[in-house]
Amino acid sequence: MYVLLVYDIREKRVGKMLKLCRRYLNWIQNSVFEGEISEVKLKELLLKAESFLDLNEDSVLVFKSRSQQWLEKEVLGQERSRLGDFL
Amino acid sequence: MYVLLVYDIREKRVGKMLKLCRRYLNWIQNSVFEGEISEVKLKELLLKAESFLDLNEDSVLVFKSRSQQWLEKEVLGQERSRLGDFL
Repeated sequence: MYVLLVYDIREKRVGKMLKLCRRYLNWIQNSVFEGEISEVKLKELLLKAESFLDLNEDSVLVFKSRSQQWLEKEVLGQERSRLGDFL
Repeated sequence: MYVLLVYDIREKRVGKMLKLCRRYLNWIQNSVFEGEISEVKLKELLLKAESFLDLNEDSVLVFKSRSQQWLEKEVLGQERSRLGDFL
């Protein structure tokens, strides 16, 4: 399935979260990832995230769609995925 | 249609963008909005945003879906929309 993951977490945990998410999904904006992922792999990602996030302060939203075709994307400005390759 | 809007913009323009987006959509996380909106209203929102954003530095992603039913949402931590009511 196709997912869109957006997080809003405390600065001190951002590096860890970014690194984790990039192992599973494509980075498209500051705190936004997208990609094809299985239900099992997504669960794995979220469990790992929960292990270090503080869910009173942090939040992660995941939007799932059976197919990316169902979502049309419009971009103003630049997508960051290019930049991501150098970090 | 249902849209999900995510922005990553310079701090000095965040207040203006937040205020603009809240006139059209529901705030669900730091820089994330969702809601039902017409194509015309969305265009209006994006034109207004473009008038003050610097698209070399800022980016706005809009994901459109004909119906919210096509997207399943999973939340870790808290959705911010409640908080938004007080700001």
